[in-house]
Parts: sequence; structure tokens; C-alpha cells
Amino acid sequence: MISKSVFGNVDFSDKISEALGSVQFPESPINLYQPIKYILSLAGKRIRPQLAILGADLFGHAKLEEVVPASVAIEYFHNFTLIHDDIMDKAPLRRGKETVHHKWNDDIAILSGDALLIKAYEQLAKCPAAFIPLLLTTFNRVALEVCEGQQMDMDFETTEEVSEDEYVNMIRLKTSVLLGGALEMGAIIAAAPSSERVKLYSFGENLGIAFQLQDDILDAFGDPATFGKQIGGDIIVNKKTILHILLKQELNSEDFEIFKSVLALSSSDSDLKIEQMKKLYEKYNVLNKANALKEHYTKRAYTNLEEIEVESQRKEELYNLADRLMHRAR
Amino acid sequence: MISKSVFGNVDFSDKISEALGSVQFPESPINLYQPIKYILSLAGKRIRPQLAILGADLFGHAKLEEVVPASVAIEYFHNFTLIHDDIMDKAPLRRGKETVHHKWNDDIAILSGDALLIKAYEQLAKCPAAFIPLLLTTFNRVALEVCEGQQMDMDFETTEEVSEDEYVNMIRLKTSVLLGGALEMGAIIAAAPSSERVKLYSFGENLGIAFQLQDDILDAFGDPATFGKQIGGDIIVNKKTILHILLKQELNSEDFEIFKSVLALSSSDSDLKIEQMKKLYEKYNVLNKANALKEHYTKRAYTNLEEIEVESQRKEELYNLADRLMHRAR
Repeated sequence: MISKSVFGNVDFSDKISEALGSVQFPESPINLYQPIKYILSLAGKRIRPQLAILGADLFGHAKLEEVVPASVAIEYFHNFTLIHDDIMDKAPLRRGKETVHHKWNDDIAILSGDALLIKAYEQLAKCPAAFIPLLLTTFNRVALEVCEGQQMDMDFETTEEVSEDEYVNMIRLKTSVLLGGALEMGAIIAAAPSSERVKLYSFGENLGIAFQLQDDILDAFGDPATFGKQIGGDIIVNKKTILHILLKQELNSEDFEIFKSVLALSSSDSDLKIEQMKKLYEKYNVLNKANALKEHYTKRAYTNLEEIEVESQRKEELYNLADRLMHRAR
Repeated sequence: MISKSVFGNVDFSDKISEALGSVQFPESPINLYQPIKYILSLAGKRIRPQLAILGADLFGHAKLEEVVPASVAIEYFHNFTLIHDDIMDKAPLRRGKETVHHKWNDDIAILSGDALLIKAYEQLAKCPAAFIPLLLTTFNRVALEVCEGQQMDMDFETTEEVSEDEYVNMIRLKTSVLLGGALEMGAIIAAAPSSERVKLYSFGENLGIAFQLQDDILDAFGDPATFGKQIGGDIIVNKKTILHILLKQELNSEDFEIFKSVLALSSSDSDLKIEQMKKLYEKYNVLNKANALKEHYTKRAYTNLEEIEVESQRKEELYNLADRLMHRAR
């Protein structure tokens, strides 16, 4: 069977790993570059750089090497946010390994994060020159939105009332715009018309929101065997997830008192805390409501993809990726 | 008398303040954008953005509005480094006002610094499109070098032996490359030939090194009435300045013991500490040696400027700026 991708049988993740591995960092100052090499070596799923390549592929762009720098820029940016977010979250572990600020210290994590952000822009400067102005504008817009989302996430920790809309907007900014932006940058390099780039961006943004809502759902209702994290972790730390927010806005005054007492339970009573919170979730049908919201954004994403004016065959890989991310069988 | 500048009688600093003031930042998230507005309001001397404009002016570039975004980008970048450096240095004050991390907190300072760095790139994207690729490459190179310099500066705090060359290289990276880069970016927008851009960059770099050496000298030997900071501040905290390094490499074994005992004096014995250290500086003729080094870089800077192939009239403003910075009368 002949591949539908203009990139043929090239394995993108191999190509991306190769590109990420081929960038040479200076040896010194060792405390600046060692943490960068370290975070990049904690290989994640590399979804974002793949999206940049798929975004170009969708519009029949055939020169993989012209898209690689933009895809590396996106991956660098993502890893920069991980380094700095982990400082703010005081997280000791990332992908099962020590975080940069924990392995070195906060100062080194701040500065190596800064350098990695600049390194991302260095990759942008390697893109085809004619596209650099538009790529730069797009990248800046998305990068700033990610910062806004992170600030909102931090602000929400101490905000009494967070509405459903505010929450969705926060996850949109913090995580989804970068998925949309990666696709959009690929489309820019493929010289796609602006109308189609916008649809592709929206596909990524909506898919990202749906994915994040699903993550919230799985944290409470996932299968412990496949979820990979402790079930109920968000409940234990009183995280304002979509489940928490959907529940809170429906509670009657009696159940609101119960809700408050569950929040007040110590994390050492974790089993009880999870059990009681899930009882409230069930009573108020929160799982169904959250699933409906997730489905709303998933459908929007699929509609965006449908409406893009390219042969439907070309869309197969993006449909497959969306299906995999959303654990959906079409 | 007719102004020699193609920009006529425009006051650059007014123009820069106007440009800096005209950028609108979103209202929310307030914890992201308020610190940025705050740091930008603590008006410094705005030397860097002026250099970008003078760099364009040198080559007869007549459209001020085409240079302003690059000059604002440089000023944003500089302020981003101030926010993050102040966290690392645990500095409570900057330009006599509270630092961002002190007024808010470290997390907010990290994130608003990140956003300001991205805002700098947003300004770059507003430069004339044809020059964006080269401006981006230049800006990235300089930005990364500034990070390297900051890391070296932090590393030196715990390094036993710092050589004269290592020290000069650190101040070159931490502060001088940005002065050179600002001039170079102006020259790029003026479409100056690459050979002349290189000379102009070197002028800025050498002048920056000379200026930083002078700062070290004035900290110990300046006139308290005009220096603006406490005389001997570097001595009190055992800072490895050029004076410290030049002294240490010459000390005989007996004086080395005295040197160590002076370093061991508490900062509450500051008068004694300063007096004893300056006695050693005098015995080893350190002031003359440091002045000779400063003169070496100052002369290189003036030679760089001389060699640039434009009418000498055009160079007047840069000569004047250099004279002012180096307190020199030609």
C-alpha cells in the first residue's frame, strides 16, 4: 500500500529524535547547557513537533527538512515551559525523573529555561526565510498565551470561584494553543491559504481542550491499570478540575457543607477523601456532564478538520492522531 | 547649526519613551502584565535602545519608525534580564525601587520575565520584514551570550581562581554583547554592509567592556559625591572584580595571607575592610593596571569607530556617547 503522506514512509518520531539529537549545545557554561540536554533527553511523546510536520504534510508540503526546525522550535518551547512550570509547582519529578530545579537549583532552572526559550527562536531563524516573519508572529502569539494560561492556573489556586468558562479558557491557553500553533506553523511552511490555516489551528485548539478535559475525567474515573498515575490525585490536592467546577456549581446547600468537609480532609485520609468526593460526583451526574463537554470540543475539532479544503485522504493521519489521543474508534 | 543626524532634531530618548509608553499590555492576567509595566516604568538611562537608533543613523537610515521596534525589543530584553537576574541575586532593590520578585514573588517574577522576553520577540516581528531573519539571528546570538555571561557570573561566586581573561570574557558576554548587538541591529535596518556592521558591533562590545571595568574601578576609587553608590561595596561582599583579580595574581605569600584575612573580615567591619583592601591595591599598583586595561578596550572601541567607512561627521553622536560613558574629554 502506498503511503498517503508526501513524506512517504519516513517515521516522523525518528526524524524528530534525530533532529533533536543533532543540535549541538556548547560544552560550557556546563550549568547552563547540561540542564537543557537533560530535559530534552527525558523523551516525552513528541506530539507537538509531530503536529508541525503533519500540518505541513496536510497541505502537501514535500520538503521535510524545511519543517524540522519549526517542529524542533515547538518542542524546545514546550520543554522550556516544563522547566519553569516545575519550579513554580515545586515539582520534584517529571516523567519519573528529577526535575531540573530539583537536580540542580532554582537559579540554574530559571536561566537554563531562558536559554532554551532563546534556542527555540534560534530554530525559528533556521526556517525558510520567506516564512520567518509569519512564523515568528504566530509563535509569539501562542507563546504569550501559554504564559497567560500558566498565570491563570496559578491564580486559580487561590481563587474561590472559578467558572466553567474561565477554566476552559485557562486550559485552552495553557495547553491547547500550542497544539494549534504547531499545526499552524506547519501549514505556514506549506504555504497553505490563511482560511485553511485558521481551521487547522482551531482543530488543534479544540482537540487540546477535549484532551485536557479527558485528562481531568480519567484522573478520577480512569482505569488504574492504564492511567499511569494514581487515581484521584486531583481530588487529594483539591485541584479545581472540570469535575470539581461542574460539581460545585450544582450543589444544594446541604451538599455544599459536605463538599467543604471533604475538601478539608487531610491528604493522609486519601481513600476516604476520594470515595466521598466521587459519591458527590455520582449524585450530581458530573461524569456525564464532563463527558458531554469533552464531546462538544471533540466534535468541534473533527468538524474543523472536515472543513479544511484538501483531499480527505490527506487528513487520515490527523484523524488517526485525534482518535488515538481521544481513545476513540470512529 | 544643522543637525548632523538624518533624524534631525528628534530627541531619541523622548521618542523611545513614547514608543515604550505606546505599547498596550493586556489588563489580565494582572499578575502577568502588572510586573512588566512596573519594571518598564522604572526608567533607566535607555542607552541600549538609543544605540539601536544611533546604529541606523550612522549609516544614514532616515526612517526612525522602522528602527523603533528593534530598539524597543532591546530594551524589553534588557528588562527581562533585570527581572530574572534580581531573583537569582536575591536583590531587594533595583533603581531604588522594589524588585519584581520582592514586590510580588519569585513565581510571578519568573513568568512575567518570560512574557517580557516573548514581548521582545513580538517587537522584532514588527521590524521591516526583509530584515527580520537577520535581526532574529543577531538577537538570538546576543541573547544566548547574555545568558552564558550570567551563568559564568554565578559560577564565579564559587570558583576559587578566576583569571583576568575569564573575567573579561564574562563581562563581555553578560553586558557588552548587548550594546554591540543593539548597534548592529540598527545597522542591519540601515542596510549597512556586513563588514561595517562587524566594526560597529565591535565598537559596542569593546566600549561595554571598558565601561564595566570603569565601574569596577569607580566602586573602589570613585568620588563618593558623584558615584551614586556606596564606595567599596564590592570589597565588602568580596566580589571578584577586576581589581580583586589583578591583585590576587600578583600577591606575594605574605600579602596573600593578609588578603585572605581581609576577605574574612565581616561586612560589619566595612570601613576597616575597605581600608585594608585598598592598602593592598595601592601597594600592588592595581589601580594603574586596571586603568591600563580599561584604556586598552576604550582605544579598541575608538579605533573600531574610526575604521567604519562613513563620513566622520556622521560618527559625532557615537563619539559623544562614548565620551560621556567613559567620562572622557577628547
